[in-house]
Amino acid sequence: MTTAAPSAPTTDTDAATVLTEIDVEARIATVTLNRPDKRNALSLALMTELIGVLREIGTRRDISVVILAGAGPAFSAGHDLGEMTGRSVEDYREIFDRCCELMETIQAIPQPVIAQVQGIATAAGCQLAATCDLVVAEEGARFGTPGVKIGLFCSTPMVAITRVIGQKRAMQMLLTGVPVDAPTAADWGLVNEVVPAAELESRTRELAAQIASASSVVTGIGKEAFYAQISRDQHSAYEYTKTVMTMNALAADAQEGIGAFLEKRQPSWSDR
Amino acid sequence: MTTAAPSAPTTDTDAATVLTEIDVEARIATVTLNRPDKRNALSLALMTELIGVLREIGTRRDISVVILAGAGPAFSAGHDLGEMTGRSVEDYREIFDRCCELMETIQAIPQPVIAQVQGIATAAGCQLAATCDLVVAEEGARFGTPGVKIGLFCSTPMVAITRVIGQKRAMQMLLTGVPVDAPTAADWGLVNEVVPAAELESRTRELAAQIASASSVVTGIGKEAFYAQISRDQHSAYEYTKTVMTMNALAADAQEGIGAFLEKRQPSWSDR
Amino acid sequence: MTTAAPSAPTTDTDAATVLTEIDVEARIATVTLNRPDKRNALSLALMTELIGVLREIGTRRDISVVILAGAGPAFSAGHDLGEMTGRSVEDYREIFDRCCELMETIQAIPQPVIAQVQGIATAAGCQLAATCDLVVAEEGARFGTPGVKIGLFCSTPMVAITRVIGQKRAMQMLLTGVPVDAPTAADWGLVNEVVPAAELESRTRELAAQIASASSVVTGIGKEAFYAQISRDQHSAYEYTKTVMTMNALAADAQEGIGAFLEKRQPSWSDR
Repeated sequence: MTTAAPSAPTTDTDAATVLTEIDVEARIATVTLNRPDKRNALSLALMTELIGVLREIGTRRDISVVILAGAGPAFSAGHDLGEMTGRSVEDYREIFDRCCELMETIQAIPQPVIAQVQGIATAAGCQLAATCDLVVAEEGARFGTPGVKIGLFCSTPMVAITRVIGQKRAMQMLLTGVPVDAPTAADWGLVNEVVPAAELESRTRELAAQIASASSVVTGIGKEAFYAQISRDQHSAYEYTKTVMTMNALAADAQEGIGAFLEKRQPSWSDR
Repeated sequence: MTTAAPSAPTTDTDAATVLTEIDVEARIATVTLNRPDKRNALSLALMTELIGVLREIGTRRDISVVILAGAGPAFSAGHDLGEMTGRSVEDYREIFDRCCELMETIQAIPQPVIAQVQGIATAAGCQLAATCDLVVAEEGARFGTPGVKIGLFCSTPMVAITRVIGQKRAMQMLLTGVPVDAPTAADWGLVNEVVPAAELESRTRELAAQIASASSVVTGIGKEAFYAQISRDQHSAYEYTKTVMTMNALAADAQEGIGAFLEKRQPSWSDR
Repeated sequence: MTTAAPSAPTTDTDAATVLTEIDVEARIATVTLNRPDKRNALSLALMTELIGVLREIGTRRDISVVILAGAGPAFSAGHDLGEMTGRSVEDYREIFDRCCELMETIQAIPQPVIAQVQGIATAAGCQLAATCDLVVAEEGARFGTPGVKIGLFCSTPMVAITRVIGQKRAMQMLLTGVPVDAPTAADWGLVNEVVPAAELESRTRELAAQIASASSVVTGIGKEAFYAQISRDQHSAYEYTKTVMTMNALAADAQEGIGAFLEKRQPSWSDR
């Protein structure tokens, strides 16, 4: 594995709140939330750094997939409550602006992002997992939106969660604040795979490698189209995606991929 | 339990088609459809009375949660078919206007509404359950949209049902008219919890009490935001909810709740 | 069973790529993709012919339900890759235009369309199944969007698939290209029923007959309303469907159906 140095933090913090490890050969970047003693709470500094790291990765053509992980026992406990009391309206606005910017950045970069979840993913931490393109969780992971218990309803996490699980299940999580376990989250469509804790890293990496075996040009086209079409009405979604398909079919990697398939040989992607 | 008198019917009917019981201490209102011999068919009179009762509850700051129940063996069999033959276009229009007004009122009041379902919930009765924020059902409950069998396709129930279960499952219910049992409805996301018949009331009440332990100001903010964001595209939903979060964070109950959490004490809500 | 001759192909092809069999007594049309040696690949000729056949069926008042089947071991392997390499932008545009036209035609005709799926339903073949109103699959059926593996992301299939299964599950299928088996597809809401291979035809026919027992005027009203309301926001969907309900209630088949129900007799539909 070739490991690049972590990206420099994009804000003036003393320590990196996000670690980035790039396996150039595998074309996989692992981005790790690095506030283990704070259960990876999403401080303004961490969110800002994470946005910067993801944007940088988004410009790189040698990275096919991103794994978003958390250091320590938890994936993320959500916003940093220490930043949440006694602040001004401008402070709160900045936190939630940055939080939404982070979520939109995850879906805006061309690389698929896989959340690798252990322990708790709660409030904005649950939103973070729900926002990633795919989620792998260890058996003991729990997902919750407990904001209602501390007087701060999880209204922004709700946006992500109601778009991946049903309305009644989202309402239950939001109104009771009671977390659900990983198998339930998988049953509800919030999690793609549940694995034993000891296999979390290896299985997530295996999934990342499987996706990285495709042309990153093509997964980038597909990911962009996915989020662009999802909120359109069906007719408009077809009008848009049929142009995407036409342009994709004309691309070198499609011509190569279809040709290789018909000739029963391995394709050679343009990004390698 | 302090029990207030039932609200006066809002229309000139001889008997109350809806019973309201308010437990002031628990902050829970139980609203009961009261036409047990008609399997709680949603006559125009009942719908009108129910809208009035819910609107009144919506103005009260001492009620945190509503349980919507049905007297007798059924939750509700839907529209009153006795009102459905040989009427004028104006009559039908009035019935469906009122029905949609009822469904929108359930989601418009600030208190979460829990459907407590026994026996059948069919046609507009299924829509009524699907429209409530949460649904608890006893094991023998059945949910169906049988209108197709009597020549009246369940087109308004379809609006509620297609928004809580998948398209194919909704189509199956609508095109065949065959009801599904409670475990299937739970598997599909229409029902939150299935319990033995003997525990239906106690479990529904327990869930209501759990939600009532939160600040009703906060659950009201959350419920309003839930339905306001759900049909927006994601970006617009974030633009809206991040303002909701900012305002919520500034509210007294959030400052109190976060403070109490950080200080490891019980919060004291402004509505108590 | 009265069997009508297959519809004439609507394009200049040598052999019929689509077979149509009409059981007038049962009011069921069975439309069979007929390129078994090509795993029913959706060539431009086949799509054009299928659109023509469906449109013709759509005008007939003596057909209540359509079964869409595939000849041979597979339902459909998607686009004909032989038509996908070395073509001009106009050629690709024509293929995807025609494909979207086919999908929209299935949902635009008044008769419910049931996909009867054996073997593979992949890429545009998976889209075709996902687009039908209902899906019955044999136990060994598999559903997949493998385009990513050959450099052509399944962006148009994605439109249909993301509207019937959850976002994370759709992403998993699209990014990995790994197919899911029939029970998984049923669990995710893509398939209505999974049956042993030997019972696929009989069970699909039974379901079709059950739907055909209703008034085709009424199922036509319902199907049109289903797709018209699904992409609207809830309030607008209610504004639209309450007018549909009012008009439906005034229709002869509703008056007859409700009357028959109240009088405990079998209804006599206007289309018989």
